[in-house]
Amino acid sequence: MGLSSKTILRVRYAETDQMGIVYHSNYLIWFEVGRSELFRELNLPYTEFEEQGLGLAVVEANCRYRRPTHYDDELIIVTEIDRMTSKSITFSYLVYREETLVAEGKTVHVFINKDGRPSDVRKYPIWQRLQPVFEKQTKLSDH
Amino acid sequence: MGLSSKTILRVRYAETDQMGIVYHSNYLIWFEVGRSELFRELNLPYTEFEEQGLGLAVVEANCRYRRPTHYDDELIIVTEIDRMTSKSITFSYLVYREETLVAEGKTVHVFINKDGRPSDVRKYPIWQRLQPVFEKQTKLSDH
Amino acid sequence: MGLSSKTILRVRYAETDQMGIVYHSNYLIWFEVGRSELFRELNLPYTEFEEQGLGLAVVEANCRYRRPTHYDDELIIVTEIDRMTSKSITFSYLVYREETLVAEGKTVHVFINKDGRPSDVRKYPIWQRLQPVFEKQTKLSDH
Amino acid sequence: MGLSSKTILRVRYAETDQMGIVYHSNYLIWFEVGRSELFRELNLPYTEFEEQGLGLAVVEANCRYRRPTHYDDELIIVTEIDRMTSKSITFSYLVYREETLVAEGKTVHVFINKDGRPSDVRKYPIWQRLQPVFEKQTKLSDH
Repeated sequence: MGLSSKTILRVRYAETDQMGIVYHSNYLIWFEVGRSELFRELNLPYTEFEEQGLGLAVVEANCRYRRPTHYDDELIIVTEIDRMTSKSITFSYLVYREETLVAEGKTVHVFINKDGRPSDVRKYPIWQRLQPVFEKQTKLSDH
Repeated sequence: MGLSSKTILRVRYAETDQMGIVYHSNYLIWFEVGRSELFRELNLPYTEFEEQGLGLAVVEANCRYRRPTHYDDELIIVTEIDRMTSKSITFSYLVYREETLVAEGKTVHVFINKDGRPSDVRKYPIWQRLQPVFEKQTKLSDH
Repeated sequence: MGLSSKTILRVRYAETDQMGIVYHSNYLIWFEVGRSELFRELNLPYTEFEEQGLGLAVVEANCRYRRPTHYDDELIIVTEIDRMTSKSITFSYLVYREETLVAEGKTVHVFINKDGRPSDVRKYPIWQRLQPVFEKQTKLSDH
Repeated sequence: MGLSSKTILRVRYAETDQMGIVYHSNYLIWFEVGRSELFRELNLPYTEFEEQGLGLAVVEANCRYRRPTHYDDELIIVTEIDRMTSKSITFSYLVYREETLVAEGKTVHVFINKDGRPSDVRKYPIWQRLQPVFEKQTKLSDH
């Protein structure tokens, strides 16, 4: 598969609500934990993007909640790069509790410069290291 | 229009992130503030649903982020019932800063009983008061 | 008293936990909402501090929880400047539900420059407008 | 020392604010992650307390912030039982980034029953397994 990563996390008490389950906005935070992990595994920690004045702004986020999750559950976040151009990245996420798919989601991000304007990642030094990822992704998408 | 409400809220410092803008998961929380307000205006506070052992579990959430929002911004959340059946409700949301649309979203909820199973709202006492809303909504949807 | 303000807020569903009450860390966020309001009422919005490269870093926070609070509760946050020097400010907070004191807290902040180092507020343009507040506070503290 | 545990966690992007550092209320959430871990290591997962109708309500929380922490920092939370009676537990926390102490805190909790009233843990089945911890703690406190 290649451009994906697995992150394990445990549900915090703070993430539950009075329905006794995880409050739904927390999944978006877990997705971000998954993205961070994926970038780290690609040896492209997100901190380096920001050090170069490059940001990845979220322009769209979706989540489908299939099963409730609970305090102390151990969850697996599978994060994958769905699509990548020099201007945007789309990630997809699968959240599992053991073998059970409990949620799935997608986020779309655009590269932005320091002023918050859309920007082309090829103009930044990090492109040199991102390019192989980009090419691998393009190949994967061809199939 | 009828089945919609406006909520005004001010962005909290805690809601920002190091990009200097609001972290994206907070919009889902604001949507919930909008739903609460809409139910309150319909004289159907959500606390009463729960007192009757009825919950509204989120099964889907989407958000499109059009403009960043910042600490101390005053935002208007327009919440509307998009679709309602005896088993589920779909809400849509528009977030404005003054006249500018900064985000829009949608959440889908199913009625659940105390065990977290899908349930029919017509079996609960609150149905008597929800029914007029339901009928008004159905009429609105016909057009 | 003078250097205090009242903020009204309504408990969000997201702020509850599976104990059915508000999760305790949210009170610190409410305290910050109170501080923001107090600065706004003093005509010194916190955004202006930051525009001048000045920050107020939290170095200490305390909260005593006297009564649980619940979803949809309307709460009053009374924020007061306890002590102010050119290097730090101490705020105290009282949280009420109607007449009942539900929590009380304190936060200590130091002025920091853009590099995160402790700084003297008298070196910044905002000092001109902060000075009368400072003097009023000093007088209040003398009694 | 015995009644303490170490938890490692990585700072999430969502936990930062526009000052570029972690927003201070998140430390209270990390403390709770530390407590959860400590209970798990003592073979007394907090879920079992709740299954028996027993809760641990926070009545006091304090935190001193010594150094800012940042996105992606790997932090160590050292959680320790400071004091334990049949009615309450006091925990203390030390937060480290590598060898540097970045924050320290304390929380005080009382045992409560299903109605939220203070309760004596000795009345619950879990007491049998908590008692050895209690006795070990008492011995430690004697010194």
